[in-house]
Amino acid sequence: MALPREYAGEDCPLARSLEIIGERWTLLIIRDAFYGVRRFSDFRDHLGIPRAVLAERLGLLVEHGILERSPAPGGREQYALTAKGAGLWPALRSLMTWGNEHYVPEPRRRAFTHAGCGGAVDGDGRCAACRARPAPGDLTVQPRAQAAAAARRADAVSRALAFPHRLLVPIGPAPIGPA
Amino acid sequence: MALPREYAGEDCPLARSLEIIGERWTLLIIRDAFYGVRRFSDFRDHLGIPRAVLAERLGLLVEHGILERSPAPGGREQYALTAKGAGLWPALRSLMTWGNEHYVPEPRRRAFTHAGCGGAVDGDGRCAACRARPAPGDLTVQPRAQAAAAARRADAVSRALAFPHRLLVPIGPAPIGPA
Repeated sequence: MALPREYAGEDCPLARSLEIIGERWTLLIIRDAFYGVRRFSDFRDHLGIPRAVLAERLGLLVEHGILERSPAPGGREQYALTAKGAGLWPALRSLMTWGNEHYVPEPRRRAFTHAGCGGAVDGDGRCAACRARPAPGDLTVQPRAQAAAAARRADAVSRALAFPHRLLVPIGPAPIGPA
Repeated sequence: MALPREYAGEDCPLARSLEIIGERWTLLIIRDAFYGVRRFSDFRDHLGIPRAVLAERLGLLVEHGILERSPAPGGREQYALTAKGAGLWPALRSLMTWGNEHYVPEPRRRAFTHAGCGGAVDGDGRCAACRARPAPGDLTVQPRAQAAAAARRADAVSRALAFPHRLLVPIGPAPIGPA
């Protein structure tokens, strides 16, 4: 789709942002990266995104310096947020807050707590206990009190997020059990 | 595009939000509504959006209670943000802040000031003078110190935004001069 006319120049920060992240899958991929998802197969299994679309979106995010790609054990690749990517947290959190308020019943929301002091973090990102606004790496995402049937899933990411999980801590491969 | 699998249920606030606003034009329309744009022709001329796309997006935003449509003088219709729509301001501001930081040179950014006290408002929405975080209706958007050539435009909205303009104050029709 063509750029809006005013913004063919470089002056609109919102249009510039949306050129890169203004696509539903892309922000969900970035959200998963905050959750600690690192591997192509985990993004794919958790989001249910077609392989070709995921490859294209990850490539775009690497190209724009939002994710960085590095070698992982087993000849695979892994993806992690850069500082520029982590800077999207306030926007992501604000959208989640708005979406929760208007679309998700309270028992089905994921709460965030401050990993430092354990306090509940409000929709504005502020810790009720110590009044700090923790960086994403200092937040723990809590499991939902009650999950919709469609959200009870068996992929590695959904299983990890069924327990409190600190943001940006990699969600690793499941341990390999006896054959 | 199909919904991501996990989110076919109703538990993901981000996916739910993006279903509605996760499209570049849509957030730009909402941004213009914060600027005070009310009329179909002003959205169209300012954004350079095709008429059919704009009509579809405005309809979607009305349907989801983000904008409300009302009769305007001359048998036209006008659109204004609802409280639910105004609740998107923190997300919009956060995206603008991120986009400015990474893509827009400082003299070409639009600054916001606190209409109450005149203080500069930072990227987190806080007034440097009084430390409040003003609601969008208490913010004034300032013209850019320096505009890219592509941003020097003659439509009514661009002309209004060449001067300080309080958010949510309607950008009205140009006065009708002698024929």
